[in-house]
Amino acid sequence: MPRLVDHEVRRRQITGAVRRVIVGGGLESVTFQSVAAEAGISVRLVQYYFGTKKEFLLATHRSVMNDVGDRLTQRWAALGEDATPRDAIRAVLTELLPLDDRRHEEVIVLGAFNTAAISGQGITADETLAAPRALVAIIVDQLERAHRLDRPADRASPALGLDAALIGAAIGGLAQGMLTGYATAQSAVELVDHLLDRMLVPKADNRTG
Amino acid sequence: MPRLVDHEVRRRQITGAVRRVIVGGGLESVTFQSVAAEAGISVRLVQYYFGTKKEFLLATHRSVMNDVGDRLTQRWAALGEDATPRDAIRAVLTELLPLDDRRHEEVIVLGAFNTAAISGQGITADETLAAPRALVAIIVDQLERAHRLDRPADRASPALGLDAALIGAAIGGLAQGMLTGYATAQSAVELVDHLLDRMLVPKADNRTG
Repeated sequence: MPRLVDHEVRRRQITGAVRRVIVGGGLESVTFQSVAAEAGISVRLVQYYFGTKKEFLLATHRSVMNDVGDRLTQRWAALGEDATPRDAIRAVLTELLPLDDRRHEEVIVLGAFNTAAISGQGITADETLAAPRALVAIIVDQLERAHRLDRPADRASPALGLDAALIGAAIGGLAQGMLTGYATAQSAVELVDHLLDRMLVPKADNRTG
Repeated sequence: MPRLVDHEVRRRQITGAVRRVIVGGGLESVTFQSVAAEAGISVRLVQYYFGTKKEFLLATHRSVMNDVGDRLTQRWAALGEDATPRDAIRAVLTELLPLDDRRHEEVIVLGAFNTAAISGQGITADETLAAPRALVAIIVDQLERAHRLDRPADRASPALGLDAALIGAAIGGLAQGMLTGYATAQSAVELVDHLLDRMLVPKADNRTG
């Protein structure tokens, strides 16, 4: 029987174990048994907190999203009010790349959920599309801010949604490229800066001309 | 016993079956049994052509690369000598997106190999990195051509390698986004055009200024 352990701590212990099992052998290796063994607790205790496999999978997915969100909030707070849109977007993008063990684990876990959604393993698009949608919305906000700062008089609405979608696609591909070893941490960060160079100077800009 | 069937046709029949098994259940569902059943032939016949699972997996990976390469060669031939660098790159990028059933299958198969390389399932980076490297090399060539056409007097070497890597990352993320349902065929093609708008106008360009 569970002792008086904080409910959230225990759930966190389990979703942390789910992540490690996914990193070790993919989503298909996740079972009540493998998760309990990884967490060092009984199968019965896992079942006490999560009635079904799908329940703890979704809780794991949510935990990754929440962790990323919490870190972003902290990084933006550290940047302060005067942060440029470029700094704000850069913080978001680097937080999503597998630049340390924690982010490496997150990228693999989110990738596994994407694969599961594609092959119809009980994970639906509603679950996996929340992350890219949130990302693109954040980037659009910052691109709009950049546009207002750079050209306060300009009422025209440029294709910021398309720019944000491109940035999102590039960071997704770059994160995967780091996992396969195509990109190193250094080359990935260099590419992020180059991406920002490309995207934050409007096409018709002629200040340098 | 195999009748006098063309060797390549038979191998193709088997690698085609491997692709469909991967699409149906991921790389982990690929076995001599599942492939033979999907191909409608005996396990013994599969073994006659491929001694090990790794052998037919690598042949399948190669077959996808060759198919994409063949289609690109055809598309470039159709474009003719006067094709702009933009047209040439656009042909490459759209050929890599899951815009029809065949390309959908290819993207899933290549993605499965990437995942296998990441989790160390006997597929190595040498195998999976060939495709992105070839892609980026092709794009660099075309970007250099665009640069020479636009500014014949310019001897400076701009960051075309970084641009090509960004284009490669974006198309990778976009292909995955189409699989998960984040991007539709229409929005993906729109994004490809926007990407080309962004990448084929150098940053300091002032022709429109």
